[in-house]
Amino acid sequence: MGVTQELGQLVASTGHDALTPSVIERAKWAIMDGVAAMLAGSTEPASAIVTSLIQEFGGAPMATIVGRGVRTTLPWAAYVNGTMAHALDYDDISWPMGGHPTAPLLPVILALGEQYHVTGREALLAYVVGFEVEAKLGRAVNMVHYEKGWHPTATLGTFGAAAAAGKLLQLNSEELTHAFGIAASEASGLKENFGTMTKPLHVGHCAKNGLVAALLAKRGFTAATEALEGHFGFGNLFVGPGVVDFTLVTKEFGNPWELASTGVVFKAYPCCGSTHAAVDAMLALRTTYGLSVEAIAGIEARVQPNRVHVLVHPRPRTGLEAKFSLEYCVATAALEGELRLRHFGDAWVRRPQNQALTAKTKGLVHSDATNTHSEVTVYLQDGRVLTHRVAHAKGITTIEELHRKYRDCAEGVLASEAIGRSLSLIEHLEEVGDLALLPQSLG
Amino acid sequence: MGVTQELGQLVASTGHDALTPSVIERAKWAIMDGVAAMLAGSTEPASAIVTSLIQEFGGAPMATIVGRGVRTTLPWAAYVNGTMAHALDYDDISWPMGGHPTAPLLPVILALGEQYHVTGREALLAYVVGFEVEAKLGRAVNMVHYEKGWHPTATLGTFGAAAAAGKLLQLNSEELTHAFGIAASEASGLKENFGTMTKPLHVGHCAKNGLVAALLAKRGFTAATEALEGHFGFGNLFVGPGVVDFTLVTKEFGNPWELASTGVVFKAYPCCGSTHAAVDAMLALRTTYGLSVEAIAGIEARVQPNRVHVLVHPRPRTGLEAKFSLEYCVATAALEGELRLRHFGDAWVRRPQNQALTAKTKGLVHSDATNTHSEVTVYLQDGRVLTHRVAHAKGITTIEELHRKYRDCAEGVLASEAIGRSLSLIEHLEEVGDLALLPQSLG
Repeated sequence: MGVTQELGQLVASTGHDALTPSVIERAKWAIMDGVAAMLAGSTEPASAIVTSLIQEFGGAPMATIVGRGVRTTLPWAAYVNGTMAHALDYDDISWPMGGHPTAPLLPVILALGEQYHVTGREALLAYVVGFEVEAKLGRAVNMVHYEKGWHPTATLGTFGAAAAAGKLLQLNSEELTHAFGIAASEASGLKENFGTMTKPLHVGHCAKNGLVAALLAKRGFTAATEALEGHFGFGNLFVGPGVVDFTLVTKEFGNPWELASTGVVFKAYPCCGSTHAAVDAMLALRTTYGLSVEAIAGIEARVQPNRVHVLVHPRPRTGLEAKFSLEYCVATAALEGELRLRHFGDAWVRRPQNQALTAKTKGLVHSDATNTHSEVTVYLQDGRVLTHRVAHAKGITTIEELHRKYRDCAEGVLASEAIGRSLSLIEHLEEVGDLALLPQSLG
Repeated sequence: MGVTQELGQLVASTGHDALTPSVIERAKWAIMDGVAAMLAGSTEPASAIVTSLIQEFGGAPMATIVGRGVRTTLPWAAYVNGTMAHALDYDDISWPMGGHPTAPLLPVILALGEQYHVTGREALLAYVVGFEVEAKLGRAVNMVHYEKGWHPTATLGTFGAAAAAGKLLQLNSEELTHAFGIAASEASGLKENFGTMTKPLHVGHCAKNGLVAALLAKRGFTAATEALEGHFGFGNLFVGPGVVDFTLVTKEFGNPWELASTGVVFKAYPCCGSTHAAVDAMLALRTTYGLSVEAIAGIEARVQPNRVHVLVHPRPRTGLEAKFSLEYCVATAALEGELRLRHFGDAWVRRPQNQALTAKTKGLVHSDATNTHSEVTVYLQDGRVLTHRVAHAKGITTIEELHRKYRDCAEGVLASEAIGRSLSLIEHLEEVGDLALLPQSLG
């Protein structure tokens, strides 16, 4: 039996009793972070366009579009919510997947969960299994797959979405095999589209495709049973002949769960990931020395040379530019003691104090290209020079920080009562009897 | 300027006056053949599943699902009609494209044509331009692209569908560039799925994706402007670095039109293309010698060795097996003097006279593997041995044959009045003032 069928069997036979407390905890964090990213992304221009398009189509009000008070059919809800979840690139990261694991899964779980009133436990199982499919496939195909130019969030996300949908629709192993076969033929997404609205669209597209693949398979639709490993299958076409070791997908499936072992990184700041370690360094200096802005004569932020290619806006004039400005991010962290969504509004970026400190901040690279640290040096008016180095961005590590991110993302989109209610539902997801309560609290 | 933008400009700037009488004529034939294939495919199991799924979704009744008396939204109509058009593999072929050119285009033209009441002239222009995009991209990427394992009908069809939709939506060159950029990230379809329901689904999927790409681009959605030729673009990922000569896409765009120069092949029989030349040979023998079945002692049909791999059912018991049975196809041609859809019904296949003559028919390969002819030898009861060779399947070459195919495909799906009306509308397409009349006559 080949890997496609084996994966079908593994996904079909995994029950809630296979989930450990730590994987359940991590899944709830990831869902909380994913909903936060979706809410924050709901007001982006790309989200507005896809929402208005699918509203023209109409259809049965099966599932909620987050943050917009609209209900639509299952596939279009997944399409729009998936696009929203990745619109700001503020969603979580899995290293083995080489991409963003939650954005393709969550829209499927919200849509089917609302339509079929599944329990929180069923939703958590679907999430963990979908995540595992994405990460284990990533182990088999990366980094070759990523480096070729595919967008793993979208390509591998198609299989993850099919797996999550398949669990909620209670597909048997044969139906899951066909769902993966359909998914293999709909996996797509090119890195050439990074930096355009089509990047988040990849995620909506793959969530919809995985969902529809499972819906079709449940109705008896057929696909190749060796769609991953076959001669003209996913492995050979999306990676290359003879490159993929598909045993990596199945031999440790759920043992341990990737979600608990390799885990996820939750982005702490709503800006380019290459700025995060420097922002951490700046905030550490600010806290340690109780710095006031008036005391600062100048700032230097140094990052690894290969990170600087995306940090192309030393003097940003818009929020979008500011996200890719090492200078603005570090200066604003020094000014505000935090970096939140509001700091990337156009008006905030143009505030004189932010512009002035950004102008005093220099983004630099290390003279030694092998130096992977981010390093911030602050020159004070009194002549002191303070330096701090950070090897890796800390990300979000406490539930308080995650709550803060959630509230920051939800503010201005949901009423405060709905923010509290949705947060509480996710925190107690394994006790929720009807998942529909969650998307309905996000409408 | 790169090829993606150039293609956007070429498609945007092409008007109806660029169409020659011969290309218009050929387009009408292709549309007639495509509608025929769609009608015949409308009753296949894959078509029934996708139709029932999208009916659960509901939505605005914008466009007709052919043969099923249902109207739905633009994307789902394209999805279902595209799947139907390729469900029987009875649709036309373009050699430079390396695939089936009409099935991805026609559903888009029918859907938008109905919604926006375009003229027949506008529909013809959209068809010719969409076909040209598919065939010229095929020149650039094939046969490497095909041989790697991609399904060009689906991958290149996504761009063709976007071009056809773009013309009907009157996108400007910049919007078309973005539509092609979105299409590049949604192109998909693996040959591993050949022989399953997912193969025709590829076509519905790509028609829908191309259509939605154009709808999004019209609303200001953005994508990479070098999505074809960029480092992480379609050429490098779907063919390989340094392989594609993209000048082949643009340098002779519409000059001449591929539709008139390399043209299309219309399948004459509703069975595997590898049987067609042998069926031609059998029918020629039957006509030349006025053969009666009683006079036949045995038949040998020889084809090229590499064709025999798909002809795997010497003694078929079902219609689907019979399509891939050289013996059944040749024997039934000898019996009936023609090969029509009804000959591939399960009951027909099991008729004693068909089974008996099939049992007397041997499918063989040439002893000389370089012999590309199909050759049929009939051994008569009176000791005579008659042989005929055919180099290439004739396909459909006269309008009478095409009408016969159309009527054969439409019978049992449409009332005879609707068959005549729809046929007449396509024959006089350049004079039709409201294209909606066509899909509405096919409902």
